[in-house]
Amino acid sequence: MREVAIIGVGMIDWGELWEKSLRQMWAEAALAALDDAGIDKVDLITVGCMSPGLFIGQEHIASLLADELGMAGVGATRTESACASGSLAFRAGFAEVASGLSDIVLVTGVEKMTDVDGGDATYTLGTAADREYEAFHGITFPGLYAMMAQVHMAHYGTTSRQLAAVSVKNHANGLLNPHAQYHLKITIDDVLNSTMVADPLHLFDCSPITDGAAAVVLAPLDKAKDLAGNRPVVKVTGSGLATDTIALANRKDLAKLHAVELAAERAYAMAGRTPQDIHVAEVHDCFTISEVMVTEALGFFEPGQGGPAAERGLTALNGKIPVNPSGGLKSKGHPVGATGVAQIAEITTQLRGEAGQRQVNGARIGLTQNMGGSGGSSTVHILEVV
Amino acid sequence: MREVAIIGVGMIDWGELWEKSLRQMWAEAALAALDDAGIDKVDLITVGCMSPGLFIGQEHIASLLADELGMAGVGATRTESACASGSLAFRAGFAEVASGLSDIVLVTGVEKMTDVDGGDATYTLGTAADREYEAFHGITFPGLYAMMAQVHMAHYGTTSRQLAAVSVKNHANGLLNPHAQYHLKITIDDVLNSTMVADPLHLFDCSPITDGAAAVVLAPLDKAKDLAGNRPVVKVTGSGLATDTIALANRKDLAKLHAVELAAERAYAMAGRTPQDIHVAEVHDCFTISEVMVTEALGFFEPGQGGPAAERGLTALNGKIPVNPSGGLKSKGHPVGATGVAQIAEITTQLRGEAGQRQVNGARIGLTQNMGGSGGSSTVHILEVV
Repeated sequence: MREVAIIGVGMIDWGELWEKSLRQMWAEAALAALDDAGIDKVDLITVGCMSPGLFIGQEHIASLLADELGMAGVGATRTESACASGSLAFRAGFAEVASGLSDIVLVTGVEKMTDVDGGDATYTLGTAADREYEAFHGITFPGLYAMMAQVHMAHYGTTSRQLAAVSVKNHANGLLNPHAQYHLKITIDDVLNSTMVADPLHLFDCSPITDGAAAVVLAPLDKAKDLAGNRPVVKVTGSGLATDTIALANRKDLAKLHAVELAAERAYAMAGRTPQDIHVAEVHDCFTISEVMVTEALGFFEPGQGGPAAERGLTALNGKIPVNPSGGLKSKGHPVGATGVAQIAEITTQLRGEAGQRQVNGARIGLTQNMGGSGGSSTVHILEVV
Repeated sequence: MREVAIIGVGMIDWGELWEKSLRQMWAEAALAALDDAGIDKVDLITVGCMSPGLFIGQEHIASLLADELGMAGVGATRTESACASGSLAFRAGFAEVASGLSDIVLVTGVEKMTDVDGGDATYTLGTAADREYEAFHGITFPGLYAMMAQVHMAHYGTTSRQLAAVSVKNHANGLLNPHAQYHLKITIDDVLNSTMVADPLHLFDCSPITDGAAAVVLAPLDKAKDLAGNRPVVKVTGSGLATDTIALANRKDLAKLHAVELAAERAYAMAGRTPQDIHVAEVHDCFTISEVMVTEALGFFEPGQGGPAAERGLTALNGKIPVNPSGGLKSKGHPVGATGVAQIAEITTQLRGEAGQRQVNGARIGLTQNMGGSGGSSTVHILEVV
């Protein structure tokens, strides 16, 4: 298998971008990544996007976006796995370069969720749940994650204060990220006193609705070394994909994310790494409980210890294993198709030592974890400075 | 790059399948392909599907379907490029096996288009056009292809009778395919006397709305040889992807399909083949004019000669270059996400010499061409008996 590296990253400021369409946001991120890589030609474009059909009445967006960039002619494809769509675009690009089918791949993610025509965000996000067994009966994602939180609390004694600590930490990190949707300093009490959305999840336990895009550029390792100049070269060393039942009712244990465990196992095996080797991680905190459960599933903490670890500051920027230095989905925002690509962009930036005020010192091995729905799919990627 | 072969194909009977849901249809096709391959474990599942969000209110279907097959845990991803979604699922699986990231990949395509909840098929298919510059203003796909047909007729003298010959030929082939949606013997006059949908396209110039699924299994060539027994081994020798502007207004020449030309050029170069080497082809005849234009773009005929060639029988089962022995989209049906995978299944069946009454004699090198929207994206794959 050909070795693959990341040669460019592009982010835009995320938020409620009323003045920007999907294609405008996307082109800005794509151009930023190409500029960062110092190239102007690619062999293939992959686009992670969950539901442009429901949000803006537009499918076939990979071709549309290639044209928007003035690159009509180039191969292009879209990937979808709900909120994990972005990391599957990354995997698709990785497989293209690793196989030799493509040399340079522009990997992108995008979602336009506000100020849209037909898009009811709650309905559209609900299509990531099992339509026949969950969504049809009125379930929404805060409700699904609240059920997992209730079981986690009953099983392990996880507390609302521990969950709130995840939110406080991620908002503190987001304050240091100019691209983040929210720049808010909040306290544990702010979280606990915010509106209850689905018991035990308060408003500040939930990630927001966001417009945004992100992009990275992949190339063979040799080419990456030629282009790097004085910057560190970041190689993709592990990639794991997994699924679980979408419907929660069919799972053995609601306090565990089996797809994350499997994806991590596969990525660690491929990279020859263990959880203890990871210096920094971006994980899928669509709700505070998900960050807790994910840090357990990744092996950073024992089952039941994710909550206490967050409360003790072990996942803070200066903690034992910094998690979500970007601010995570909670503070940076969660334009669902873009999230997985933005995680790769953040870890690459960290490994290059270019993360400014939110830089994790000495980070040379990083991990990203991106999840679809209530854990029905997950990816884990491991990136390393070579 | 690791060599890749097709070790199994699975088709179901296509049509208006009121008694079957998306997951039921899909599981039947997937199980048929696994059964044909003689295996019961895969490393990854790819699913081509254009718009389950708009048709049935369900995204995240790759995970859903992995679970439906009793394979929750396995990696799974969905690809989308409008009506070319299926062949992009094939390309994704090809890249996975070629890179060594996966050994066995189940490549599938599916679309549930009739008897659906929120799905207005005309609106949903319209999302493959440019929403802001075409669909919003009321354009539909028969209208887009009718404009291309008008230009082709004005430029080359292509006639309605030549277009009708494509329909008559594909329906004649479909009569020999038990999986086809329609089993109708029709005449040139039947086509010319059928309702005008968008001048010059009559009802019998248009492919139908269809429910259906298809699947193939990919493996490394060595493994394929081990499993083949006495059956011919079918290897993937060429794969080309390309895009064009989605909006027709931005194209230089409406009488040519530039994305098809580019995808073909890339696939021929990879396989070391020319149009003259191809023994049998499945191409994207969503409308009769598209088969004419595609056979020109693939280099089977000179520009403007696609219509006369169809009328002279050069693309018939016993012609110089048999096109759409399966009956094509016109007669077999066009469940958009499934079409590209079904084309691969048909060519594999032809190259194995297992196509029964519709067998093309001596076929050892075959080609598939699958197209998104009005030619905004296209793929070309070349398969060969080794």
